[in-house]
Amino acid sequence: MSLIVVGSVAYDGVETPHGKVDRMLGGAATYISLAASYFTPVKVVAVVGGDFAREDTDLLVSRQIDLTGLERVPGGKTFFWAGVYSADMNDRTTLRTDLNVFADFNPKLPASYRAEPYLFLGNIQPALQRGVRAQLDAVRLTGGDTMNYWINDFRGELLETLKQWDFLLINDSEARLLSGEQNLRRAAARILEMGPRTLVIKRGEYGAVLFQGGRHFMAPGYLLEDVFDPTGAGDSFAGGFIGYLAGRGIDPSHGDLDFAELRRAVIYGSVMGSFCCEQFGVDRFRTLTREEIDARYSEFKNCTDF
Amino acid sequence: MSLIVVGSVAYDGVETPHGKVDRMLGGAATYISLAASYFTPVKVVAVVGGDFAREDTDLLVSRQIDLTGLERVPGGKTFFWAGVYSADMNDRTTLRTDLNVFADFNPKLPASYRAEPYLFLGNIQPALQRGVRAQLDAVRLTGGDTMNYWINDFRGELLETLKQWDFLLINDSEARLLSGEQNLRRAAARILEMGPRTLVIKRGEYGAVLFQGGRHFMAPGYLLEDVFDPTGAGDSFAGGFIGYLAGRGIDPSHGDLDFAELRRAVIYGSVMGSFCCEQFGVDRFRTLTREEIDARYSEFKNCTDF
Repeated sequence: MSLIVVGSVAYDGVETPHGKVDRMLGGAATYISLAASYFTPVKVVAVVGGDFAREDTDLLVSRQIDLTGLERVPGGKTFFWAGVYSADMNDRTTLRTDLNVFADFNPKLPASYRAEPYLFLGNIQPALQRGVRAQLDAVRLTGGDTMNYWINDFRGELLETLKQWDFLLINDSEARLLSGEQNLRRAAARILEMGPRTLVIKRGEYGAVLFQGGRHFMAPGYLLEDVFDPTGAGDSFAGGFIGYLAGRGIDPSHGDLDFAELRRAVIYGSVMGSFCCEQFGVDRFRTLTREEIDARYSEFKNCTDF
Repeated sequence: MSLIVVGSVAYDGVETPHGKVDRMLGGAATYISLAASYFTPVKVVAVVGGDFAREDTDLLVSRQIDLTGLERVPGGKTFFWAGVYSADMNDRTTLRTDLNVFADFNPKLPASYRAEPYLFLGNIQPALQRGVRAQLDAVRLTGGDTMNYWINDFRGELLETLKQWDFLLINDSEARLLSGEQNLRRAAARILEMGPRTLVIKRGEYGAVLFQGGRHFMAPGYLLEDVFDPTGAGDSFAGGFIGYLAGRGIDPSHGDLDFAELRRAVIYGSVMGSFCCEQFGVDRFRTLTREEIDARYSEFKNCTDF
């Protein structure tokens, strides 16, 4: 049983206080898939241009990621994003966004994907997210991400889409924007009324909070000694979170997602986000092993238990 | 065995999005003592003016806080501070600071204080902090707080003072300033070389991190549904932390402070800081019970365990 991941596969130009890379593999679906691939088989749905390099395909394939749904537009160019981070890396400024072939992305699922039970919808137009879900015959668990743009300008469509989701995974500023509440607990209560029965709010270096019903679980952020590049950390969190749940064969069709499993999924998400920051772009995933992941999970336990 | 708390007892004028109070009891020593008083007997060293109200003395006495060391200057006025908080309450602007009698504060310990083993030095001039410690005959555990002003303008004196401390408890911006390191883990490593073998870095609503040797412990901030007034939250954290350790009869003279006890002390600190924010000024301490504290401690465990 596989996880379907839908979203952007891109090239990024990134500058952090630790260095500058003009063009490297990036995109939400890339990070989500790489992180999830340590826990479960992954099938990607995305679009790239004729400039998409063989070595980048090879990296994804080396992690057993199924690329049948990776559409190639030979005459087009791959989505390109460039940004620069502030000294403390808590803020970034976008220098360039060339949507290229991503502008016309209309995800179509290959026949070989349609029986899969797990779906993570990366940040794309809400109606497209809904369209993807409709192509699955036996979806068991649906969740995803969104962003300020859709919350502000496509609110109606987004709310329609959210009704079908089991979980929503967004950052704190998006949660405040979506709910209209400044306080995180109140924001969560409002969002849980919109459809998803589980909500994860990411707080960057400060960790994440999981909400379900009247309960919540707080995970502090892993304290890294060196943050080289935070790009993709939130998507790697998402990949660890959904990857862990899919790998465990979770089935919420008879009620809420198991809260103990969700707690562990949040920690695995934090672990994957922390590894992502240790090198530029996706580089950490070139060498990362499941043993290192489990060791950091144990370290997390050690650093939070009382 | 009692805890000696040294620092400011003041009147505050505070404005938050939830309201405005022109003048109410405040000061670091006030919050530290009130919070610590739930765990251990407390003896205060501070100075107030002739305007210090009987009802404020009564509140402290109602918590069994020993005021023998509370100096009164009949012709002077009590330290007054006024500030206004931003909409998200993560920033505040100081509107007024009248040091008044606090400007000439030169703490002298009553004879009845000198045999006590536990000392918490609130944020005052580092040489004065050193002078207080010298007046104790059998001090077992010393720790305290400082601020940007002393770190910048009295660095030499502060470093001399820190050499005698078992623990330092400061916020993240102070830790960065003191160490010259942006990264929290590196900052902690540098500070632990300055003398204190235990360091607690407070991160406001995001919790706190405890460092000792090569180990650390992360406590997320308690998620409040309503933050009425964050004034005194950091000092209440300090009071819960040192109060718990003193109440447990901790004796680090044969080595490091016990790490398991320190973890629990950090959580009690977080618990006391969270209660402090629930009402204006010290108001929450007028009704707070030890049972409520222990219930929130359990809730913390529930919200962080995985």
